[in-house]
Amino acid sequence: MSVVPPLGGIPEGVRRLGRIPVLDVEPTVRHGELPAKSVVHEQFVIRAKVFREGHDAVNATAVLTDPDGGDHYFPMRIDNPGLSAWSATVVADRPGWWSYRVEAWSDPYATWAHDAGIKIGADIDVELMCAEGVRVLDRFRRAVAGQDADTGALDRAIDALEDTGRSVVERYSLAVSDEIRGLHRVIPLRELVSPSATYPLLVERERALYGAWYEIFPRSEGAYFDAQQGHWVSGTLRTAADRLPAIARMGFDVVYLTPVHPIGTTARKGRNNTLVAGPDDPGSPYAIGSPDGGHDSIHRDLGTFDDFDFFVEQARGNGLEVAMDLALQASPDHPWVTTHPELFTTRADGTIAYAENPPKKYQDIYPLNFDNDPASAYAEVRRVIQVWLDHGVRIFRVDNPHTKPVAFWQWLIADVAKGYPETIWLAEAFTKPAMMRALAEVGFQQSYTYYAWRNTRWELEEYGRELAGDSAAYMRPSFWPTTHDILTPYMQYGGPTGWKVRAAVAAMMSPTYGIYSGYELHEHVARPGAEEQIDNEKYEYKDRQWYLYEPGGPLEGQSLSWYLRRLNDIRRWHPALRWMRNLTFHTADDENVMVFSKSRVIDYTTGERDTVLVVANLDPHATRETTVHLDLEAMGMATWSTFEAHDHMTNQTWQWRADNFVRLGPDNEPVHIIHVRSH
Amino acid sequence: MSVVPPLGGIPEGVRRLGRIPVLDVEPTVRHGELPAKSVVHEQFVIRAKVFREGHDAVNATAVLTDPDGGDHYFPMRIDNPGLSAWSATVVADRPGWWSYRVEAWSDPYATWAHDAGIKIGADIDVELMCAEGVRVLDRFRRAVAGQDADTGALDRAIDALEDTGRSVVERYSLAVSDEIRGLHRVIPLRELVSPSATYPLLVERERALYGAWYEIFPRSEGAYFDAQQGHWVSGTLRTAADRLPAIARMGFDVVYLTPVHPIGTTARKGRNNTLVAGPDDPGSPYAIGSPDGGHDSIHRDLGTFDDFDFFVEQARGNGLEVAMDLALQASPDHPWVTTHPELFTTRADGTIAYAENPPKKYQDIYPLNFDNDPASAYAEVRRVIQVWLDHGVRIFRVDNPHTKPVAFWQWLIADVAKGYPETIWLAEAFTKPAMMRALAEVGFQQSYTYYAWRNTRWELEEYGRELAGDSAAYMRPSFWPTTHDILTPYMQYGGPTGWKVRAAVAAMMSPTYGIYSGYELHEHVARPGAEEQIDNEKYEYKDRQWYLYEPGGPLEGQSLSWYLRRLNDIRRWHPALRWMRNLTFHTADDENVMVFSKSRVIDYTTGERDTVLVVANLDPHATRETTVHLDLEAMGMATWSTFEAHDHMTNQTWQWRADNFVRLGPDNEPVHIIHVRSH
Repeated sequence: MSVVPPLGGIPEGVRRLGRIPVLDVEPTVRHGELPAKSVVHEQFVIRAKVFREGHDAVNATAVLTDPDGGDHYFPMRIDNPGLSAWSATVVADRPGWWSYRVEAWSDPYATWAHDAGIKIGADIDVELMCAEGVRVLDRFRRAVAGQDADTGALDRAIDALEDTGRSVVERYSLAVSDEIRGLHRVIPLRELVSPSATYPLLVERERALYGAWYEIFPRSEGAYFDAQQGHWVSGTLRTAADRLPAIARMGFDVVYLTPVHPIGTTARKGRNNTLVAGPDDPGSPYAIGSPDGGHDSIHRDLGTFDDFDFFVEQARGNGLEVAMDLALQASPDHPWVTTHPELFTTRADGTIAYAENPPKKYQDIYPLNFDNDPASAYAEVRRVIQVWLDHGVRIFRVDNPHTKPVAFWQWLIADVAKGYPETIWLAEAFTKPAMMRALAEVGFQQSYTYYAWRNTRWELEEYGRELAGDSAAYMRPSFWPTTHDILTPYMQYGGPTGWKVRAAVAAMMSPTYGIYSGYELHEHVARPGAEEQIDNEKYEYKDRQWYLYEPGGPLEGQSLSWYLRRLNDIRRWHPALRWMRNLTFHTADDENVMVFSKSRVIDYTTGERDTVLVVANLDPHATRETTVHLDLEAMGMATWSTFEAHDHMTNQTWQWRADNFVRLGPDNEPVHIIHVRSH
Repeated sequence: MSVVPPLGGIPEGVRRLGRIPVLDVEPTVRHGELPAKSVVHEQFVIRAKVFREGHDAVNATAVLTDPDGGDHYFPMRIDNPGLSAWSATVVADRPGWWSYRVEAWSDPYATWAHDAGIKIGADIDVELMCAEGVRVLDRFRRAVAGQDADTGALDRAIDALEDTGRSVVERYSLAVSDEIRGLHRVIPLRELVSPSATYPLLVERERALYGAWYEIFPRSEGAYFDAQQGHWVSGTLRTAADRLPAIARMGFDVVYLTPVHPIGTTARKGRNNTLVAGPDDPGSPYAIGSPDGGHDSIHRDLGTFDDFDFFVEQARGNGLEVAMDLALQASPDHPWVTTHPELFTTRADGTIAYAENPPKKYQDIYPLNFDNDPASAYAEVRRVIQVWLDHGVRIFRVDNPHTKPVAFWQWLIADVAKGYPETIWLAEAFTKPAMMRALAEVGFQQSYTYYAWRNTRWELEEYGRELAGDSAAYMRPSFWPTTHDILTPYMQYGGPTGWKVRAAVAAMMSPTYGIYSGYELHEHVARPGAEEQIDNEKYEYKDRQWYLYEPGGPLEGQSLSWYLRRLNDIRRWHPALRWMRNLTFHTADDENVMVFSKSRVIDYTTGERDTVLVVANLDPHATRETTVHLDLEAMGMATWSTFEAHDHMTNQTWQWRADNFVRLGPDNEPVHIIHVRSH
């Protein structure tokens, strides 16, 4: 671009627009102040408003810059001329800090082809237009030169345009041949190239977006009540490791352990969150710290670091990653109380402030204070994290991150990523939208969501569209039908059918979902007055006696483990289920029946797609018959297509089209999970 | 704030969040890359999402920084706790480059007052809470010290909190007295203060937002057909100046002149845009340039620069500003063709490219090319602008700015503002939304709008909400019911009633609106096949014989000039009409009846408001009776209020309340313009 005069008289920092405006570039997070997110090989769409003065043709290219500075070019196409809206589907093929920009450019070849087509057709200025064509194609030829492309078609077209002996139609046709247009698509003649700002893009490993989680309290796995001695015997990391093959057989990818650290005794909570613990109550693993140690230690009942290493090794051998719980709070018995008093708040009477929500007091917990001495607090937490990194942990599930400064998380996640960029952090922040969003934006790879409280079709559709839409640039959802803290009325009263529905919708709609141990057994009884389980595992051991449900066992067939396995198998078979952004909702006449699909091109050469279509009756109490109406184009088919619909849940196959009858509910299966096989 | 460790491992430019997050700050334009706009004394609302970890109280302040670097503090209030949404109404009191930020802060006084209120009420930790209160109030006292405020109440409260001999209720009450809360509102104890980014704010003179424009073709004012000689005699700048008192009497603020430059003869257009001009056809003033000169010259028929100066002087004497037309294009006879050939595009055959929209040719116009030599092109246009600045022009109406590079306008407007910051540019860009928005964002103070094509209630409501909403940060609308290029079907067929409606809605809804000369005379006949007037003034003289409509004249009473005057008088009487952001729509049962109000606090001490309520029957063909339903709270009244409704159009006064009967239409006046006088 030629030199233009400097822009004076306005404050520094005010942006100067380029020769051709490029605005509203997406996906961005805080306008590029924070990185947009993707995972390796995940397709996403870059959008921008691109427009120019006058009538000449404009065009645009999306440019991804890889961590080594290499540029990858993706031609954009115009989606809506009236709104000047352009887009390109792009993909980054390895993890790291990428960036991207949109380059708008003047397209003299398209301008000429358009004008010459009209004028030559109308027999106006024919020789002039041919001469103009020679000028444009010559510039085009020079732009292509040295780029390892065949310019023969350009040479021939220029010769033809100059050859007044040939017919005008032939001269023009050669200049707009498929060959030249194809070349122009790949190596265009770009003039007045005007780049947008450059926006950061953080590409992470696939597990950041996709994975099936299974949560256990390790002390419960292998625990038993010793009737002779009259007390419980804790499970250990070794006995918990015995459970790993079963978790792996159900098809999970991640095993998440609630905290494994020593537990305080001061003001320890008893069963069902009672204020006074019995002598044998093990206490909540979230009241961390005892004279035995704190966040860098392992509860003696669970074992040693050798046992922990053994557990991690066994998990790996079973194809499972281990997720640690990070609950940054202390019991009054935590070593930090003496070694790091600056981590706590001292009150006017000299005592350390425990957790409160006035007038309620939580005297078993000291919250951490990050403001007394941030440098010390940050460093101490970082030291603790390193202990677990050194023992092979690369996934942290963070308890209540919204009770610590957002700026701290941004620092911690970035600091760990310097040495361990594969680390994944899951935010358990069931809180206001602004805080949830900010935590995701500053680095948490995954977020627990409002899924547990989204039960009706319109709620799930609205939420799914949000998560698959703009918010996919910063927040990756994790769907949990239940957790050890959450048992909603739907789950309390939905029966096994409701539990199937909620697991299936979670596993199919969200690339990451999680199951809390015991889900198989439909543990649905709530503590009165609470939306959580009675006899909450936080305060006691649970011996679920899994062996009773095994083949030949007395409770065989009374577990949903086969259903979870089926869901996880389907997730493995279908690459379309690994993404969130490719979610599309369809409709059904019955408002209780939700229909959605995920579709993904798996062969860019043939355009072959993988498509899964889910039809779920969300009413767990009644079988419903209705008609579903499908947006076939969203699944890569023409509107009049028929296709083979293979239901993975029943192994039935039907011929489907845009409108289809379904019957779903408790008397059979409540959810179709259909492999769409187009003809 | 204490030192926190540096943030490593992530690319430069990625933003680090502050101790307390401040996000979604508005109003911003392109996230602060370009300035948000306001005019002197115009109120606008700063919004932000402010939230923090845990339960402690958070608070926020909006800070405006004036051009000299002085900070002006505005306390914010929370509008929606669930959405963490805060706001403050602010105002800048002089023009220039301001900036603003939002400061979030920890509010230990509010935290203590909340917790202590609950705990003391429940008789929990009473002495501890009093001691904590002493600590907080002591910090508060130190924060206030030296700020010229009375700390007596703080001293007394601290004494009371320390005095165990007094009742707990008294001790607590003194610490949360109105006096201390009031002091805290003005000079709060702010801790962990966390500023947002700083966003640019351009404050311009009031005319940038507010003004009534009147457009004339100066050659028509005083033109007459000389029957003896058989040809037209052109009006001049001197005869046009004779029209200024009448324009001023109608109450207009700006007189806008179509181009005054020499007109080309090559391919000159004849009457009604015919391709061949007759020997006496004056040509379009938009085909600029002849051997007499170009954009820096005055058409010899209009007079000299002395005459121009006279016109500007006379306008000023009549309270009118002069707006010049800037149409950056040339006739083939323009001096630039020889002096600045780099301003044009040379084709393959060596000729200069004229305007085209293939297959249509506009051979009377050479478009400018800003890419051959941008430095030269920019400088030459800037030189031309200086000529008119030197002759007192400070408003430019720019013809088709969307046919020139947006980057050029950004430069030109900024460069002129260096020496002449009071200059106002109006963009005549009837084009796609992205381009209109970009032109406004890079500096045009005002924009023609889609108003002419928004005729139904829902169209006007939607557009009005857009213009008064987020887009008010960058685009200031100008509403024109007609222009010399635009005569919509509504105006062709609406009759005088329709012309009243369209003028009234324009003048009341938009702070800036414009009337094209002849509107008074209901010149509504279109050229067949075109949405513009027959015998378009662009191609011929118009002698409107204004004297015939004067009192005692034969056409007295057949002009709408009284209506325009009334509208402009109302605009002067009511400061509420000077703003756009204060627009509120109400409703009516009849979908043809539109109801809106503008309200503005005019005395911050008493809260006194100026409020105008407009009820318009948009159907020009039928009188309609209906009930209007008012949002009284939006006008500063309680929902059950009654008020005195004085109709400025009929001088009638009624007692109104939330629901009122109206009857409007061609048999009387189609629009109520009501002065709301609350009791």
